[in-house]
Amino acid sequence: MALIGKLVVCGVGLIGGSFALALRRAGAVDRIVGVGRSMASLQRACELGVIDEATTEWRAALDGADLVLLAAPVGQMDAIMAAMAPHLGPQTVVTDAGSTKRDVIEAIYRHLGARLANVVPAHPIAGAERSGVEAAFPSLYDGKKLVVTPLPENAPGAIERVRAAWAACGALIHQMSPAEHDRVFAAVSHLPHLLAFGLVHDLAGRANAEQLFGYAASGFRDFTRIAGSHPEMWRDICIANRQALLGELDQYLAELAYLRALLMAGDASRLEQLFDEARRARNAWAEQQTNIVSE
Amino acid sequence: MALIGKLVVCGVGLIGGSFALALRRAGAVDRIVGVGRSMASLQRACELGVIDEATTEWRAALDGADLVLLAAPVGQMDAIMAAMAPHLGPQTVVTDAGSTKRDVIEAIYRHLGARLANVVPAHPIAGAERSGVEAAFPSLYDGKKLVVTPLPENAPGAIERVRAAWAACGALIHQMSPAEHDRVFAAVSHLPHLLAFGLVHDLAGRANAEQLFGYAASGFRDFTRIAGSHPEMWRDICIANRQALLGELDQYLAELAYLRALLMAGDASRLEQLFDEARRARNAWAEQQTNIVSE
Repeated sequence: MALIGKLVVCGVGLIGGSFALALRRAGAVDRIVGVGRSMASLQRACELGVIDEATTEWRAALDGADLVLLAAPVGQMDAIMAAMAPHLGPQTVVTDAGSTKRDVIEAIYRHLGARLANVVPAHPIAGAERSGVEAAFPSLYDGKKLVVTPLPENAPGAIERVRAAWAACGALIHQMSPAEHDRVFAAVSHLPHLLAFGLVHDLAGRANAEQLFGYAASGFRDFTRIAGSHPEMWRDICIANRQALLGELDQYLAELAYLRALLMAGDASRLEQLFDEARRARNAWAEQQTNIVSE
Repeated sequence: MALIGKLVVCGVGLIGGSFALALRRAGAVDRIVGVGRSMASLQRACELGVIDEATTEWRAALDGADLVLLAAPVGQMDAIMAAMAPHLGPQTVVTDAGSTKRDVIEAIYRHLGARLANVVPAHPIAGAERSGVEAAFPSLYDGKKLVVTPLPENAPGAIERVRAAWAACGALIHQMSPAEHDRVFAAVSHLPHLLAFGLVHDLAGRANAEQLFGYAASGFRDFTRIAGSHPEMWRDICIANRQALLGELDQYLAELAYLRALLMAGDASRLEQLFDEARRARNAWAEQQTNIVSE
């Protein structure tokens, strides 16, 4: 008997589609139903063999469902949960793949309050340059981190089913509180994205923008790669996690104020010391990364 | 007859060594003398065939020299020019490979004032992850930009000899004023380095640094790659170009203040618009890059 009888994936793109393909590869699922707003893209997912059935109706999708993965952009979670709530039975476990947790959890309390035992928030730390169901592949999660951020109301059995599903996808299971999750990713992911978008926007608005970009080299290319990320997705993440992100931005502004003071004073030795500490920390981290993930 | 009879390279590392190898590959030089502080590393350069002779004495090095390339860290330029000045004859053309120009030019006026017609500042926009003479290779400059930043006092023939030498190395010759050069590179190179060093230093100093780095992924890796750069070199660049760099940092701080205000206000639509403009500019630039250079 498979781990999951009926799996429902809402948002069959890179993340949701790869989850479906990984569970299928593991023989961990019997039947996969895709649900979404666009029948055309769901039918493409059927053609690609990512899902078995497609529907735009939550009632049909949730009937007899064992596990639901919500893999839509976090900005759509509120509307999705409102739509699914009337049809969600007590036997179904729900999880999500949102990059932020506080806002998803607020939506859970708002709409799925009657089912809190079975709604277990999580976040797979994986991704790729391309998006959409065409980009999905079964090994996306191999060796990648899955952070499960349980609610106090979650039933231990529900948490275990979510962990087991992601483990079957090849992911390494980590657990932390939602608030801790949002602080950590504000620092190492959301802030760098904001900073990269900001630098490119700043330079692109200059009168000599063309000249500036003309002399940009590989350091600039790598530093700004994440400024090529999806604007809507990152708008949602930044807004959803803006409390933690503002805290990180303010810490970074304090760091820049210190760097500015060193430059003003021409303090070469403290500047070199700071650069040296940064290089050591960065290189020590890079050496530990044997299996770095995209996001 | 070769373009250059006797070439002197001061600082036979990646940059100076590759210049020597590229000119040799082009058949553009008869004899190459390396000069530096460490006889051991110069002898290594001899063994590798990068230079023909090594000396620590400027008198011997400059005797009959046609062209001198100063390829030492910019922080050493003042001492180097002071040492070479008494031995520099009127027939020798001097250029440099410094990443900043204002400070190099200040040193030129301080020490080589009697030879201004023949001292032509320049900056090759090329580099690699590794440094030192072992990392030097003849094709480093193929298709890369060389920015020559002539002084008003430069003789046209001297400028032309510097341009011709770099063209023989395979470089594409660009020309701008020293001040313009320093402003452009403050924006697209020096500031991103400062920002990357700052972010890693900020996070490395946190009580939960290990946890933070543990969840950092590919976006963080690329954004912070330049924080692994050489601390002494970047200290020198930041100090030397701190006037332009402070200007760029202040413009960026204004951009971050705007981003902070959008986050505080929860202004999702302006945030998305900014991200979208940044993405378009970044992608348009990236598509034009067929031959992106390291630095």
